[in-house]
Amino acid sequence: MSRDSNYDHHISIFSPQGRLYQMEYCFKAANSGLTGIAVRGKDSCCVVTQKKVPDRLMEPSSVTHLFQLTKKVGVCVTGTMADCKAMVQRARYESGQWTYDNGYECPVGVLAKRMADLAQVNTQTASMRPLACIGLFIGVDEETGPQVFKVDCAGHYLPFFAAAAGPKEQEAMNFLEKRVEGMKEFTNEQVIRTAITCLGHVLGSDFRGSEIEVGSVVGKDGRFKVLSEEEIEVHLNAIADDADA
Amino acid sequence: MSRDSNYDHHISIFSPQGRLYQMEYCFKAANSGLTGIAVRGKDSCCVVTQKKVPDRLMEPSSVTHLFQLTKKVGVCVTGTMADCKAMVQRARYESGQWTYDNGYECPVGVLAKRMADLAQVNTQTASMRPLACIGLFIGVDEETGPQVFKVDCAGHYLPFFAAAAGPKEQEAMNFLEKRVEGMKEFTNEQVIRTAITCLGHVLGSDFRGSEIEVGSVVGKDGRFKVLSEEEIEVHLNAIADDADA
Amino acid sequence: MSRDSNYDHHISIFSPQGRLYQMEYCFKAANSGLTGIAVRGKDSCCVVTQKKVPDRLMEPSSVTHLFQLTKKVGVCVTGTMADCKAMVQRARYESGQWTYDNGYECPVGVLAKRMADLAQVNTQTASMRPLACIGLFIGVDEETGPQVFKVDCAGHYLPFFAAAAGPKEQEAMNFLEKRVEGMKEFTNEQVIRTAITCLGHVLGSDFRGSEIEVGSVVGKDGRFKVLSEEEIEVHLNAIADDADA
Amino acid sequence: MSRDSNYDHHISIFSPQGRLYQMEYCFKAANSGLTGIAVRGKDSCCVVTQKKVPDRLMEPSSVTHLFQLTKKVGVCVTGTMADCKAMVQRARYESGQWTYDNGYECPVGVLAKRMADLAQVNTQTASMRPLACIGLFIGVDEETGPQVFKVDCAGHYLPFFAAAAGPKEQEAMNFLEKRVEGMKEFTNEQVIRTAITCLGHVLGSDFRGSEIEVGSVVGKDGRFKVLSEEEIEVHLNAIADDADA
Amino acid sequence: MSRDSNYDHHISIFSPQGRLYQMEYCFKAANSGLTGIAVRGKDSCCVVTQKKVPDRLMEPSSVTHLFQLTKKVGVCVTGTMADCKAMVQRARYESGQWTYDNGYECPVGVLAKRMADLAQVNTQTASMRPLACIGLFIGVDEETGPQVFKVDCAGHYLPFFAAAAGPKEQEAMNFLEKRVEGMKEFTNEQVIRTAITCLGHVLGSDFRGSEIEVGSVVGKDGRFKVLSEEEIEVHLNAIADDADA
Amino acid sequence: MSRDSNYDHHISIFSPQGRLYQMEYCFKAANSGLTGIAVRGKDSCCVVTQKKVPDRLMEPSSVTHLFQLTKKVGVCVTGTMADCKAMVQRARYESGQWTYDNGYECPVGVLAKRMADLAQVNTQTASMRPLACIGLFIGVDEETGPQVFKVDCAGHYLPFFAAAAGPKEQEAMNFLEKRVEGMKEFTNEQVIRTAITCLGHVLGSDFRGSEIEVGSVVGKDGRFKVLSEEEIEVHLNAIADDADA
Amino acid sequence: MSRDSNYDHHISIFSPQGRLYQMEYCFKAANSGLTGIAVRGKDSCCVVTQKKVPDRLMEPSSVTHLFQLTKKVGVCVTGTMADCKAMVQRARYESGQWTYDNGYECPVGVLAKRMADLAQVNTQTASMRPLACIGLFIGVDEETGPQVFKVDCAGHYLPFFAAAAGPKEQEAMNFLEKRVEGMKEFTNEQVIRTAITCLGHVLGSDFRGSEIEVGSVVGKDGRFKVLSEEEIEVHLNAIADDADA
Repeated sequence: MSRDSNYDHHISIFSPQGRLYQMEYCFKAANSGLTGIAVRGKDSCCVVTQKKVPDRLMEPSSVTHLFQLTKKVGVCVTGTMADCKAMVQRARYESGQWTYDNGYECPVGVLAKRMADLAQVNTQTASMRPLACIGLFIGVDEETGPQVFKVDCAGHYLPFFAAAAGPKEQEAMNFLEKRVEGMKEFTNEQVIRTAITCLGHVLGSDFRGSEIEVGSVVGKDGRFKVLSEEEIEVHLNAIADDADA
Repeated sequence: MSRDSNYDHHISIFSPQGRLYQMEYCFKAANSGLTGIAVRGKDSCCVVTQKKVPDRLMEPSSVTHLFQLTKKVGVCVTGTMADCKAMVQRARYESGQWTYDNGYECPVGVLAKRMADLAQVNTQTASMRPLACIGLFIGVDEETGPQVFKVDCAGHYLPFFAAAAGPKEQEAMNFLEKRVEGMKEFTNEQVIRTAITCLGHVLGSDFRGSEIEVGSVVGKDGRFKVLSEEEIEVHLNAIADDADA
Repeated sequence: MSRDSNYDHHISIFSPQGRLYQMEYCFKAANSGLTGIAVRGKDSCCVVTQKKVPDRLMEPSSVTHLFQLTKKVGVCVTGTMADCKAMVQRARYESGQWTYDNGYECPVGVLAKRMADLAQVNTQTASMRPLACIGLFIGVDEETGPQVFKVDCAGHYLPFFAAAAGPKEQEAMNFLEKRVEGMKEFTNEQVIRTAITCLGHVLGSDFRGSEIEVGSVVGKDGRFKVLSEEEIEVHLNAIADDADA
Repeated sequence: MSRDSNYDHHISIFSPQGRLYQMEYCFKAANSGLTGIAVRGKDSCCVVTQKKVPDRLMEPSSVTHLFQLTKKVGVCVTGTMADCKAMVQRARYESGQWTYDNGYECPVGVLAKRMADLAQVNTQTASMRPLACIGLFIGVDEETGPQVFKVDCAGHYLPFFAAAAGPKEQEAMNFLEKRVEGMKEFTNEQVIRTAITCLGHVLGSDFRGSEIEVGSVVGKDGRFKVLSEEEIEVHLNAIADDADA
Repeated sequence: MSRDSNYDHHISIFSPQGRLYQMEYCFKAANSGLTGIAVRGKDSCCVVTQKKVPDRLMEPSSVTHLFQLTKKVGVCVTGTMADCKAMVQRARYESGQWTYDNGYECPVGVLAKRMADLAQVNTQTASMRPLACIGLFIGVDEETGPQVFKVDCAGHYLPFFAAAAGPKEQEAMNFLEKRVEGMKEFTNEQVIRTAITCLGHVLGSDFRGSEIEVGSVVGKDGRFKVLSEEEIEVHLNAIADDADA
Repeated sequence: MSRDSNYDHHISIFSPQGRLYQMEYCFKAANSGLTGIAVRGKDSCCVVTQKKVPDRLMEPSSVTHLFQLTKKVGVCVTGTMADCKAMVQRARYESGQWTYDNGYECPVGVLAKRMADLAQVNTQTASMRPLACIGLFIGVDEETGPQVFKVDCAGHYLPFFAAAAGPKEQEAMNFLEKRVEGMKEFTNEQVIRTAITCLGHVLGSDFRGSEIEVGSVVGKDGRFKVLSEEEIEVHLNAIADDADA
Repeated sequence: MSRDSNYDHHISIFSPQGRLYQMEYCFKAANSGLTGIAVRGKDSCCVVTQKKVPDRLMEPSSVTHLFQLTKKVGVCVTGTMADCKAMVQRARYESGQWTYDNGYECPVGVLAKRMADLAQVNTQTASMRPLACIGLFIGVDEETGPQVFKVDCAGHYLPFFAAAAGPKEQEAMNFLEKRVEGMKEFTNEQVIRTAITCLGHVLGSDFRGSEIEVGSVVGKDGRFKVLSEEEIEVHLNAIADDADA
């Protein structure tokens, strides 16, 4: 057995190999949710994730992993839902505070960095456990254009052309890597369809419009928008037509 | 034995599998109470739970799992009663504070979310244990109509068409799922009778009016009302008649 | 052996079965005192408990488990005396504060609920142990009439027609249950004599007036009054006469 | 072995039998000092304790277990001397505060109760150990006459006709119980001589005036007075004469 | 096995040999990143490190271990990235505070010392773990000229002619030591090419311009500048030409 | 083995026998220093202790266990020197505060009691260890004349005619006890010579003036004075003459 | 094995022999640095220590164990460098505060005592570990002339004629002791050459001027001055000449 006993009982104790076991266990918890995929293109970016309504009694519209943080910034979270919502709550507070302090909305990169910094603090002190939550932040920055950031429970924030989080992260990353060429010139449609195709590929299944969630920001003045089932169906049909063609 | 020794002795320590054992034990405590069932219909919603007066010396009217939180919002709690009452106490404080701050009553969804956020905090720090309490919040929102929220000790808050909590949760959910079609158009009578029938089904027994509690909110201006024994008897008789018919 | 080792060493840690062992041990301590019995009737209520002067050197009048909390509210405590007195101290402070804040005396139900809430807090945090103390609160509420509340160390507060606490709790409850019919119409005399008879029954012995304590509140304007030995003797004689008759 | 391992390592943890072991160990420490005896009579009360000057180099007048707390209230302490003096220090502070707040001196019963309440707090929290100290408080109350209170480290305060503390507590209590009849009418002389006789009896030895300490309060306006060696000799001679007679 | 069990579980406990094991484990974590190399010359200094974009989906420009702290001071970090960024964040705050307090920018030596002092504090208290991060600070001081400082997680700050950090630290130091003669008179070109050559030597591989990062400060008024891929290629070509020559 | 395992690992935990082991270990540390002896006479008092300059490189005048606390009060300390000096530091602060508050210097008894009270606190809480230090306080009180107080790490303060502390405490006490008769009438010379003789007796050796330290206070207006080597020699010669005579 | 297991895991716990193991381990860490030697003469004092530049890449001028604390006071530190620098930092703050409070510079003895007091506090509480650092403070006091103080991690501060610290402490002390006669009349040159000779003796090697550090204060108005390599060479040559002579 490779791990020493007891090094993994305290949040802020290194093992002799220099590892923080609690962080690794926390990642296990964070990656046990649904798989989310984010892609950015020429002037837009999107996130796609599964929508699994655990039972028919639950209001489908309430089951979501997509959250709007500011008018123009959204996030797709994976992990323990209660932790995710706590993170979303804090992100909204931080962005509101930013608007109050600076008179304009918090850019997606700043917000992602702030949330990563807050997450890092929880890895360093003994009083709080880290939140079992990974977020894919998307937005179109006024200066740098479309952005995708991945923020994890260890406090990393990483900009991506396309990113994935959750149990199928690795497979999705492999799929996306093959298509990264030309992604910078993708139109909004291409961005969304690539993300959906990727999700379908790694899960090995076709979707109906009610089985996935799609969030998207288009253009520098665009808002974070969650697509309706009908809008998603249009994309699904186009993908199916492409495949048939 | 699948769990590692000692990971379950601290509130905020992950096991190598990414689990928080103390939360799971707390759910055991929370689900060891009575079964509660909540259903929402066209313009009303209700909660039904067993009423078990432990002995004849106890004043029957004091034995209740239904609590009014604001004029229009009620909750059915299951779990350790002392913890439940602490949660109810806090919910009343929070809703009072909301009314003071905003000049109108706290909507059911906002209140449920606030209580879930407070519960989440207890899962993250080492200084407080989580409360062994699950609540079914009901109310009719001015904008979104009837609402049923389930708030648990891990900090989840989930909107449902119909929900159940307690030892028979799974059986009740199965029963309700079969009837979820058309539930959106249920009248108040149908809502209440469905909930009562469901409770009778999972417990495998008939009730008298004094053996169950029914709380209900009807219409956007309706108040949270706990039905009298006589009113419950009317519903029970109607159910019996239906069954005979 | 049914309990896991070590789950019972921390106040606020759940066992895998969802139990809080420290609470259960605390109840053992709380129930190791004397048995107390409370009964309520038409417009009065009373508490009766044994009076055991441990040795003849102790001033008999100082040995008491009955404490007046406000003019109209009294309590019979069982458990560790030092803890009981701490609870009484706090209850008096709380009721004084209520009178100061509201301009009238704290009703018995409100006071009992407040003490239960304070006890619940001690079960949730790690910094204080719960108090090993169970209290039977009695009083005549201006609106709801005679009231008997049982407040325990886990934070429950339960209204009863008749209640018991201490080592013989179960036997006393059985005795009282058989007589609960018609108890609502009991006169003050009947109330007191039922409680005394019950105590004699479960302890299997006759008393002299100096061997029990009786506290009583009669009528909405009545005060909490501890009966003198002579007054108790009158009741004992009446009970004896009834038995002979 | 009757005690469970480890339940006795924490101040505020109950054992499965509902016991607080640290309190019991603390009593052992408190009872390992000298035996003290307090008796009250018609209008006076006294405390008597051994005076053991550990070596001839120590100033005999400084070796004392009797401490004046207010003009009219004294205490005889037994246990660890450093803890006892800390208790005396606090008692003097509390009585001074009372005089400042209320304009008259703190009655003996109030002071004893306050010290017991302070001791109880140390049994409930984990941050302080209880003080290994038992005190016999004496004084003549303006309203209730002579008073003897025993305050222990668990937070009990108990009024007595006559009390004992220390290693020979049980023997002394037995001796005093036989003489409790008529004690209420004892003159000051009788009170003192009974206490001295009792101490001699349980220690099985005769004293010289320098070998015991006697503190006494006589009458409602009387002050707490520690008797001189000569005064004690008078009493010793009278006791010897009585015995010879 | 040379280490005693358990001395390594607490941050601030010495082993019998006077070692702080947690510090040593932390160094393991800090040295598990990439190798960075810093060299200073006549009037310039530079840092060179590998640039490994973990996958093609990540925006290459965002993957960096070089951070600008003030206009004129930069740092190359190695270790856990989240910890490194926390250190960078703090360094920027400290330098901003310095500018605010003193009206001019914080010199590189002062800033490096301040960060070392902050790191030392984390080795001394039990409440925070040390940050797994080693930084190579570079800048040209107005008075003392080019400076290279190495700041590690134990709180050391050491000025170097040329320094290395990371898994190949020792090999790089050996390489650099052989060339330290005359380094003081190196031009900026020589400085950069020596650092790049060193990195290539210890990693045993050739680079393309996109595979390394180079940061440089030239002259007392020079700013910290990260070289573009094209600028790096120029240096690489020159090195290749030299080697061929 | 008489001690239970682990009861001695916590400062404020009683063993089942009611002992505080950490206090006993602390006394071992406190008594491992040099032996000090204090004697009081008719109108003077003195302390004598060995002066061991550990090596010839140390400034002899700096090696001292005698410290002046106020103009008129001095102390001889034994135990861990760093702890002793911390105690001296605090005593000086306390006496300075007293002078500021009361307008006259702190009497020796008051100061000794205050230091004992402060030491007692460290035995009761878990956050500080007790100081391994025993002090012999001397001074001439304006009202009660010469005083010798022994203050130890458990918080005792005891007035003595003559006292000793350190490894030879018991032998010195035996020697002094034989001479306690008439000590009250000793002149200053007799006081000093008795103390010196005692120290020589228990150490079984003759001294030179540079090998002992003597501190003395003579008369109610006298100051605490440390004798010079020459003054000590005078006493040593007188003692030798007496022995020869 | 003479030490009990576990007594050495807590900073402020005594072993049954009255030892504080963590202090002893800390001394091991503090003495694992370089050997430093301090000597004082008629009107000057100096410190000498090895200067080991760990590798040729490090700026030799930055590798130093000598630090100026005030204009006139310097210190030579040995131990963990990060801890040493933290101590130096604090000493500078304390001396600055003194100048601000008192209007003149902090004398060397006062500063050494203050640093010792601060070190003692870390041995007494559980929250901070002691700093693994020993300092030799030198300065010429306006009143008492040249001073050498040794301050260690246990909180001792000891004035010396000549002192040593570090792994060769004992050998150096032996060497110095033989020469302590007449040291009080040493000129500055003699002082420095004695210290250098001593260091060479215990290390069994000759030095070049770049291999040792020499700090010196000459006269009451003299400043703390670190000698240049050339100045050191002059002394080395003189020593060599003496040896040859």
